Amino acid sequence: MLLETIRKENDIKAIPKDQLHYLADEIRDFLIESISETGGHLASNLGAVELTIALHYVYDLPKDKLIWDVGHQSYTHKILTGRKDEFATLRQFGGISGFPKRKESTCDCFNTGHSSTSLSAGIGFVKAREILKEDYSVVSVIGDGSLTGGMAYEAMNNASSLKSNFTMVLNDNKMSIAENIGGISTLLNNIRTAEPYINLKTGIESRLNKSDLGERIANRLRSTKNSIKQMLVSGKLFENMGITYLGPIDGHNIEQMIHVFEQAKKLDHSVIIHVLTEKGRGYQPAQRHPRRFHGTGPFDVKTGSPKVKKEKADYTDVFGASMKRLGASNEKIVAVTAAMPDGTGLSGFAMKYPERFCDVGIAEEHAVTFCAALAAEGLRPVFAVYSSFLQRGYDQIIHDVCMQRLPVVFAIDRAGIVGQDGETHQGVFDLSYLSMIPEMTVLAPKNKWELHDMLKYAVAFDGPIAIRYPRGTAYDGLQDFRAPVEYGKSEVLYLEKEVALLAVGSMVPVALQVKKALNAKGIPCTVVNVRFVKPMDETLFVELAKNHRLFVTMEDNAAAGGFGERFRNMLDQAGISVPTEIVAIPDAFVEHGKPDVLYRELGMDAKSVTERIRKRL
Amino acid sequence: MLLETIRKENDIKAIPKDQLHYLADEIRDFLIESISETGGHLASNLGAVELTIALHYVYDLPKDKLIWDVGHQSYTHKILTGRKDEFATLRQFGGISGFPKRKESTCDCFNTGHSSTSLSAGIGFVKAREILKEDYSVVSVIGDGSLTGGMAYEAMNNASSLKSNFTMVLNDNKMSIAENIGGISTLLNNIRTAEPYINLKTGIESRLNKSDLGERIANRLRSTKNSIKQMLVSGKLFENMGITYLGPIDGHNIEQMIHVFEQAKKLDHSVIIHVLTEKGRGYQPAQRHPRRFHGTGPFDVKTGSPKVKKEKADYTDVFGASMKRLGASNEKIVAVTAAMPDGTGLSGFAMKYPERFCDVGIAEEHAVTFCAALAAEGLRPVFAVYSSFLQRGYDQIIHDVCMQRLPVVFAIDRAGIVGQDGETHQGVFDLSYLSMIPEMTVLAPKNKWELHDMLKYAVAFDGPIAIRYPRGTAYDGLQDFRAPVEYGKSEVLYLEKEVALLAVGSMVPVALQVKKALNAKGIPCTVVNVRFVKPMDETLFVELAKNHRLFVTMEDNAAAGGFGERFRNMLDQAGISVPTEIVAIPDAFVEHGKPDVLYRELGMDAKSVTERIRKRL
Repeated sequence: MLLETIRKENDIKAIPKDQLHYLADEIRDFLIESISETGGHLASNLGAVELTIALHYVYDLPKDKLIWDVGHQSYTHKILTGRKDEFATLRQFGGISGFPKRKESTCDCFNTGHSSTSLSAGIGFVKAREILKEDYSVVSVIGDGSLTGGMAYEAMNNASSLKSNFTMVLNDNKMSIAENIGGISTLLNNIRTAEPYINLKTGIESRLNKSDLGERIANRLRSTKNSIKQMLVSGKLFENMGITYLGPIDGHNIEQMIHVFEQAKKLDHSVIIHVLTEKGRGYQPAQRHPRRFHGTGPFDVKTGSPKVKKEKADYTDVFGASMKRLGASNEKIVAVTAAMPDGTGLSGFAMKYPERFCDVGIAEEHAVTFCAALAAEGLRPVFAVYSSFLQRGYDQIIHDVCMQRLPVVFAIDRAGIVGQDGETHQGVFDLSYLSMIPEMTVLAPKNKWELHDMLKYAVAFDGPIAIRYPRGTAYDGLQDFRAPVEYGKSEVLYLEKEVALLAVGSMVPVALQVKKALNAKGIPCTVVNVRFVKPMDETLFVELAKNHRLFVTMEDNAAAGGFGERFRNMLDQAGISVPTEIVAIPDAFVEHGKPDVLYRELGMDAKSVTERIRKRL
Repeated sequence: MLLETIRKENDIKAIPKDQLHYLADEIRDFLIESISETGGHLASNLGAVELTIALHYVYDLPKDKLIWDVGHQSYTHKILTGRKDEFATLRQFGGISGFPKRKESTCDCFNTGHSSTSLSAGIGFVKAREILKEDYSVVSVIGDGSLTGGMAYEAMNNASSLKSNFTMVLNDNKMSIAENIGGISTLLNNIRTAEPYINLKTGIESRLNKSDLGERIANRLRSTKNSIKQMLVSGKLFENMGITYLGPIDGHNIEQMIHVFEQAKKLDHSVIIHVLTEKGRGYQPAQRHPRRFHGTGPFDVKTGSPKVKKEKADYTDVFGASMKRLGASNEKIVAVTAAMPDGTGLSGFAMKYPERFCDVGIAEEHAVTFCAALAAEGLRPVFAVYSSFLQRGYDQIIHDVCMQRLPVVFAIDRAGIVGQDGETHQGVFDLSYLSMIPEMTVLAPKNKWELHDMLKYAVAFDGPIAIRYPRGTAYDGLQDFRAPVEYGKSEVLYLEKEVALLAVGSMVPVALQVKKALNAKGIPCTVVNVRFVKPMDETLFVELAKNHRLFVTMEDNAAAGGFGERFRNMLDQAGISVPTEIVAIPDAFVEHGKPDVLYRELGMDAKSVTERIRKRL
């Protein structure tokens, strides 16, 4: 087993070059086996095995800087830097992260998680090297999907002016999570299909023997000193910007990549190496269904089917179904996604109303302003997006949507603790960053029916409005509580006295458990489903202040600027002195782990909240 | 006077085509005269006179949609849509805005202010037109500087897939506010210097007779039906993305532009028309100093010199001088700007330490992550940026800087009410959106010496840190109060009792006036310079609670999520019931007007605050 010989970075260099493909096979087997147990990102990691091996063979870590865009393809990198034995703890609380983390290894020089940051970071390292007069290589590995994000382009624009080497590896698998969108994709496609490369993915079986092809290109490389130049097929975009373009090359041919990386290293400016890879490579179920195996739970290796079957709909499903239903009666509804038609649940809507569905690519800034203009013309755009990714469009929400008071609906999935993807993906800031914007209305549903009702309300609402809901199974309790959604009105679920629990969205079921526990101790307890985080139901809350001696706000959002703090301010402003216990996420980033574990750690599970209340009384 | 005949949109069409250049002259004279009185954006508007005339001649407003990127070049558009007589009120409270505003005219179809939004908006209008089966043209006018912003590229990537006409006019004056940066600029430059166009701007006098050139191009246009295609010089970038490229054409030749726009209208997909214009055109002082005449105060028409001379340094100057001073002793300091070396005060630093100065172009997202990587390598990047523009890098601040706790310094200029540029430029959200991020430290200086001291503190601080300061004259009072900056410590300026004023940054001088007024009424009053907005000086405030019966927080930031709300929460958490009056900007966008007028309107001037306190006591 070659894999056994790798205990730390650079151990790989002891393996003869022509044996490396055996190492690739072993890593691939290990990844499939390991992820089938823990879950994780599979397809992208299987696609990057050879690429990572070639990079580690050529570069000297941690001296050289290797930056992984998004970072969910960094598993092989983790294995090659001595973290193989920790894969059993992957993405678990206290275990290794599914993304590069500086604190895990000196070979992880920059944390990633969101798309399109790697080029900017790489340029920062290059500039630092120049200023500090140091000597190391900088390599950013970016996927073709990430290249549609505007900041990658901002960086590319800066890469062209560098006066020393910066190597960008374009890991092109013709899809990010879903299909790619737009002109840059067309451009790459033109390059892909140009001579001398034959598209790898026209069928499951390539019509051309791949090692044969690799050999041909390698021969060309050897034939002349300037041969690298000859590999330039039609990378005009990059060349026009002053960036040397090399490629496309076979991203599963290790020796060929090693050769090109070694050549690229010698250049004294920016170079982009276009590498073609196949998502899910070497594992048939993932090759066939790369979208399903993008991020996967534990699965059966033989069949590829998930070990745990989803029994109940999650909020994403509920949202998707609602959109389909509402789209039928309201032709003004337009659904917008930034490269996540599946992840946001919009695939059904897209099939049914293709003319009213827009996938803009990984481009949240554009998406928000695009929606603003749709709304300006009388349409009702619904931008379905994950909470942490919407941060990318923050200025546009303020500047283009809210300042013009345009009726854009933000359907914010993955709000609250998302769990195993960790801190970069936790959706714990949206209540704060949205509530502080004038003209914005912010809602959170308690259960699956309310998500539908709120969406129906939102598409008829005349102004910017956001609905945020968590990852995972949609709560299907409290079916009988279905009062119509009214502007700025909360819903009283149980009216008692003493303690008033004001719960936002997914905290409602937790509040019910708390109530039960308090009642059992003889403490009466009111439960309110907040519904409107902004504007809040001041009238109701002032009324409740009369016969409650403790308010408890509950939200799966940062305390800073969240519902609880805004609630407490409202009370103060109204001259009410009933104390408030704020249950929310403290002022620190929350790492990866199962949501229930994390909520317990944060003191936000029913038991902890009950204890906090009893202490306070 | 042709200008007299224009009372509303489309009146221009009654003027014979060959007379339009006289109209241009009249508009130019009017603009110079008018802006010399009111101040405003001059250079960009002088450059866009003919372009705007040609657009209004060809398109039918308000049916057709005309979107101005940034929007500070829209004065001629305002004149041609019947707003000429309101120019005396330009940028004044209650007067017309310096930017397009939907509520001012139906011909302003989309508000702008920040850079690079116009293409996204345009695509939104095109998509709406397709969905609603309407029939109108959509034209976005974008400058070459705005094209370096990532969202313009995200939009361009989407423009290529449109199935009906979308016209982008690239108003290329080879500079946005300062020089352009990077690859896209090189690319445009290659196009500019290519046949058949001779660069307009190699000297003050063009070597080629311009009307002669225009004539030649126009002749070519007439010569064949497909002649438009012949104008395609080397717009490979756009063509590669599936977008038709026409140009470059002379942006001061009205008839030529009319012809091209009429041709472009007929295409059934996206087209970009590359128009070359000259900033400041027709007014020598502005031609020579386009940067100074970008945004100008009232000036003497004859000489171009400002009517009111700046007597005291503003905060931008102070920051610039401090950076130069600190840069001498600390070689780790790197200054970063997003296309505003002058506007942020970094020109001096750039001259002195060119190797440690980086202008990344209009690219705030990239700038923040770039800084994060510089910091990861041990440097001390200082990103100098305007408050409202930093909103563009919000996700990157969270994801790349704060999650990795990297020592990036954010030097945030134009914080608080900026005045005449209006709501898009007010820097009133930064305290909120920064304070809610874990690991962030937020400071505000009371006067010019403190800005220097804080900057010195910040470049030695081991974590993300922001210093925010307002537009305008740097306060030079309180020189004797210069206690060393200590982590999390406020500065007590006057310790009395009864009322405690806790003032943030530029509100300190206002607090001094309030104190004086209260003292005159026999009310003792403590004044604290908050300094650290995050983390706040809890120990001090808890101590003050003992012998004060009213806290008054004062900040030039939104109340929502600002210092006051965070302070009140801290008190509550500490079980302190002293009431707090929060002086801050209410939950609404603040329009244009002089800052002192606006602060009075908002009840934040010394007199209003004093009254609020007396009522409260």
